[in-house]
Amino acid sequence: MDAWVVAHPGPVETRPLERAGLPDPVPGPGELLIRVEVCAVCRTDLHLAEGDLPPRRPRTVPGHEVVGRVAALGPDTAGPPPGSRVGVAWLRSTCGRCRYCLRGAENLCPASAYTGWDADGGYAELLTAPAAYVYPLPEDAPAETLAPLLCAGIIGYRALVRADLPPGGRLGIYGFGASAHLTAQIAIAEGATVHVMTRSAAARELALRLGAASAGGSADPPPEPLDAAILFAPVGDLVPVALAALDRGGTLAVAGIHLTDIPVLNYQRHLFQERTLRSVTANTRGDGREFLRLASLHHPQVTTTPYSFSAADRALADLAADRVEGAAVLIMDG
Amino acid sequence: MDAWVVAHPGPVETRPLERAGLPDPVPGPGELLIRVEVCAVCRTDLHLAEGDLPPRRPRTVPGHEVVGRVAALGPDTAGPPPGSRVGVAWLRSTCGRCRYCLRGAENLCPASAYTGWDADGGYAELLTAPAAYVYPLPEDAPAETLAPLLCAGIIGYRALVRADLPPGGRLGIYGFGASAHLTAQIAIAEGATVHVMTRSAAARELALRLGAASAGGSADPPPEPLDAAILFAPVGDLVPVALAALDRGGTLAVAGIHLTDIPVLNYQRHLFQERTLRSVTANTRGDGREFLRLASLHHPQVTTTPYSFSAADRALADLAADRVEGAAVLIMDG
Amino acid sequence: MDAWVVAHPGPVETRPLERAGLPDPVPGPGELLIRVEVCAVCRTDLHLAEGDLPPRRPRTVPGHEVVGRVAALGPDTAGPPPGSRVGVAWLRSTCGRCRYCLRGAENLCPASAYTGWDADGGYAELLTAPAAYVYPLPEDAPAETLAPLLCAGIIGYRALVRADLPPGGRLGIYGFGASAHLTAQIAIAEGATVHVMTRSAAARELALRLGAASAGGSADPPPEPLDAAILFAPVGDLVPVALAALDRGGTLAVAGIHLTDIPVLNYQRHLFQERTLRSVTANTRGDGREFLRLASLHHPQVTTTPYSFSAADRALADLAADRVEGAAVLIMDG
Amino acid sequence: MDAWVVAHPGPVETRPLERAGLPDPVPGPGELLIRVEVCAVCRTDLHLAEGDLPPRRPRTVPGHEVVGRVAALGPDTAGPPPGSRVGVAWLRSTCGRCRYCLRGAENLCPASAYTGWDADGGYAELLTAPAAYVYPLPEDAPAETLAPLLCAGIIGYRALVRADLPPGGRLGIYGFGASAHLTAQIAIAEGATVHVMTRSAAARELALRLGAASAGGSADPPPEPLDAAILFAPVGDLVPVALAALDRGGTLAVAGIHLTDIPVLNYQRHLFQERTLRSVTANTRGDGREFLRLASLHHPQVTTTPYSFSAADRALADLAADRVEGAAVLIMDG
Repeated sequence: MDAWVVAHPGPVETRPLERAGLPDPVPGPGELLIRVEVCAVCRTDLHLAEGDLPPRRPRTVPGHEVVGRVAALGPDTAGPPPGSRVGVAWLRSTCGRCRYCLRGAENLCPASAYTGWDADGGYAELLTAPAAYVYPLPEDAPAETLAPLLCAGIIGYRALVRADLPPGGRLGIYGFGASAHLTAQIAIAEGATVHVMTRSAAARELALRLGAASAGGSADPPPEPLDAAILFAPVGDLVPVALAALDRGGTLAVAGIHLTDIPVLNYQRHLFQERTLRSVTANTRGDGREFLRLASLHHPQVTTTPYSFSAADRALADLAADRVEGAAVLIMDG
Repeated sequence: MDAWVVAHPGPVETRPLERAGLPDPVPGPGELLIRVEVCAVCRTDLHLAEGDLPPRRPRTVPGHEVVGRVAALGPDTAGPPPGSRVGVAWLRSTCGRCRYCLRGAENLCPASAYTGWDADGGYAELLTAPAAYVYPLPEDAPAETLAPLLCAGIIGYRALVRADLPPGGRLGIYGFGASAHLTAQIAIAEGATVHVMTRSAAARELALRLGAASAGGSADPPPEPLDAAILFAPVGDLVPVALAALDRGGTLAVAGIHLTDIPVLNYQRHLFQERTLRSVTANTRGDGREFLRLASLHHPQVTTTPYSFSAADRALADLAADRVEGAAVLIMDG
Repeated sequence: MDAWVVAHPGPVETRPLERAGLPDPVPGPGELLIRVEVCAVCRTDLHLAEGDLPPRRPRTVPGHEVVGRVAALGPDTAGPPPGSRVGVAWLRSTCGRCRYCLRGAENLCPASAYTGWDADGGYAELLTAPAAYVYPLPEDAPAETLAPLLCAGIIGYRALVRADLPPGGRLGIYGFGASAHLTAQIAIAEGATVHVMTRSAAARELALRLGAASAGGSADPPPEPLDAAILFAPVGDLVPVALAALDRGGTLAVAGIHLTDIPVLNYQRHLFQERTLRSVTANTRGDGREFLRLASLHHPQVTTTPYSFSAADRALADLAADRVEGAAVLIMDG
Repeated sequence: MDAWVVAHPGPVETRPLERAGLPDPVPGPGELLIRVEVCAVCRTDLHLAEGDLPPRRPRTVPGHEVVGRVAALGPDTAGPPPGSRVGVAWLRSTCGRCRYCLRGAENLCPASAYTGWDADGGYAELLTAPAAYVYPLPEDAPAETLAPLLCAGIIGYRALVRADLPPGGRLGIYGFGASAHLTAQIAIAEGATVHVMTRSAAARELALRLGAASAGGSADPPPEPLDAAILFAPVGDLVPVALAALDRGGTLAVAGIHLTDIPVLNYQRHLFQERTLRSVTANTRGDGREFLRLASLHHPQVTTTPYSFSAADRALADLAADRVEGAAVLIMDG
């Protein structure tokens, strides 16, 4: 077993990930044992490594964008046969019986557990996961490009759903990182007109190359009113900017976990005419399945920077320093 | 013809409504001529009389909560036969072809016209209205109690729809005037648990009498988290209060046309966990039809203060001075 | 333990149910142990006793309309505390991961299990059931009137949902037994106009007493076109009759498990103008929760004939001979 | 003015269409005058020419798949400016106030009028049409390939909607003519797996070339259960065949106006497990707008056989004799 754990969350600049020498994990009832091919590195891993998200159990292996193959099925487990390619994402399990689960909002389940936080994740040779929360993956794409879909992609897709974009509508995207650039590609492929607002000139160029209709600065007004907008940048000051850019009946969805304070809003300028402001939190398995279906249909471009598994600490350090082009992915080789 | 017009919007305390001596209105193609039985007095009439809402044409008769009977059909008009009881409300017409109309959001149509603003309303013996925008009304209720349903009732109902209350859910109502007390009754009859927050002790008593599960002060926390809330009070400071009272996935709908500024919002406290903030603007004919159906099913209590038509100016003055119990209604008698 | 089992399914006229002398059941992980107060007798129990539905395991206790109280929780079980009133219905469990379960159609799950068929049911002092499939029940109604809601009521409610009745619409009901008379009451309370077609004069009288707008013979045309219809009678010849009674865009839902052959249909007379014909199969937990909410709101009348638990065989015999007034219910007394 | 009318519907083999010598049509209030570029020939034109559909007014010019440009706007008309490219389709107008129109089912409006039946259609240099029922068309496609979308395409799209195909689902198509082959391409582009059943070997080849997963004979079972199916062939005997091919919860939509009788159905084999059988009738403007959006996104292949306008009678004769490859289109040149 070759597992990387956050042993002693030390000072930010070191992030001492070390081999753990743990025994092979054993899948319980309803669980799969999965051999990891690739695990993408998410900014949430950094928050966990640095203690921003407090640890829920000691020495937990991070990693929740895992592409691998079924190695074995636990007792009494129905699931894909050994050898099947599967993906493991952030949502590890939900209770299935709370008021949120029963109305289809399992993303809000207060008893949900998360991969790499409540249980060991994918910075490892092997991990276990409940069969009912694992996604079947296609064989016709490299594991490196599938892995980043499993968090950045799915979350961005839920934001798109929550933004209530009408078919063929005009979508504004504020901020243009990993999640945003996948979301933009899916929206464009489905017929939306996409306007991107971001402070990065390189991101604006990328946006136009991927098919955006326009690309401007963070707070620039888009060239036409928006039916829907998604705020990916964690900047509360952009909320009134984006609300003012909405057409009558439009919706602004805030995709981030963190956001700086939202300043004073004026009713007529920012909310009247049935505009909507809402947040997006985690995702359901339905979101994951539907996004992966759309990705397999539209083949969004994914840029990755590969690292070997033994370089996980370096990948995290590069991410912290904004030195990664596209998504950092850990390759389990030999 | 006996029509009251806002001749010269004078100082609030006088509001000189006077007989106009106009000829009988003539219904155009697609229009009905309607003999008025009762017209309720809405706070919007006051805004029009006082010039808060700028007039769109001179000497327009106000009144948009009209109960009457069809007197005649215009040329080429399909509609209910003469003698049928009908209601005329705020929404007089929409364009039927803009992007909002075509997706069923005719309440957002920029070319819509309004009764008593763009055309003469119901402070009159007779008025005309497009047959397609008139509501059939039941015979088994007095006209006085039907009239207030046509604006306060329908708008409140749209707010309830926009608040996305799940079946049997927990609804918070902030402010408890004409619209709110009708909305509360419909929600309770449909199975909701309703918590009312209002500064008026009398309104709290009324709320409990009408079946509310609890009634507290404006900014008091409700005894349980809310699945949905409606803000009827035009007080922006209550927005963060109500957002904080929402359960995960809950929605706050702001029903008013005016609202004072919304103060700074904190993402975690006020919006995270998929909470939604949105406004409610006017209504569609579908809202009107569905609300009138529910009202006819559940018979909400309506309190009215009657005035003769010749006392319209006094009714407006009483409304301005908060001296009206329930809804003021003008009775067309002899 | 006092459990009734179908020991040796004999000839219809004997149905030898006898005390089984089994040990107390033990709740597994995720299960509740429930002490039975009342179990209603369903026609499906008769099919099981007579072997029409082939047994899935030997000596299984029937009964799937169970009202009782939680006696204990199994290991690792989240659920209502001991003493809570709960209901156990036909759907005992589903797989939670098949294509049907994942899109919310757990009623179609091929791996679902049923109470009293795949596991011991409620003709007993005690039974176990998965906590996630048990319904909380109110305290303010007698157990006898709650029990029949749990199968006849829920199935009828799903039929109503599948019939796509618009709000305030015109509903036709063909056949008027236990399920139909509960469905009619709920539909009327929600604002529908209900027309009942049945061969039984007594059922027609009951229908009118419960608020139906009209009641006629099985194949009589209703007095107005129907927006939706439900066929409860297992008579395929009524399918074209009911389809011809539908208005444009109307839906006919067939509620039964069994139906005699549907005769030749003529496209123009029976299907054109966007009419729909569909079947209804079992139910989801969502259906159950929503129906029980509506029943608790509208308090439909339920007629019952009580039997002691030791008279279960007599109850089945009476049911087979059509000698039961309303629903037969077994009362667990002392 | 150069208009073709069905002067004296004679025997099929002659169909004497002749120049009418009519004056230029004048657009009324709310109408556009449109100069025709191309008009596709639909099988319904043949039914009209042959009297299968009885004429509603004498000497009516047929043609309801019209691509042209706005020449003038009638009085009081809001609409696209002169020169704009527009499409005119079968649905010419609806009443806008009947129970069907008000719930969004304008395709069922009993007072609707149709292009080329209730008013002169597009076998002409010029025609008028209500601005609210005309579709904006893109400039980036030849008129010949746009015209067939306006009837075959839109109707097929509504059938697809009515078939309730889940995202990424398995769709069966029975019959593979003009409408079916457009529908198949849109479904495939949106991610469906499509199985085509047709008696024509050439159509099976075309189906596979366009991306169908399989193609078999009319009554062959598809290689996997279907989530949804559309019956384009007017053969009632295929209804039980297609119902038996459906998976649990699947829907069969019958797209035709005519269908031979549907034979006896067996409940268990053909309808149980929540299968649905329904018809598809005409379309709404919403269907048209959404289909044209998808067509502009996915660019389905359209095969056409061009005719000059003076050869309209020959086009109809060729269509009657099944001698047309793809869609027959009349080109208005000189």
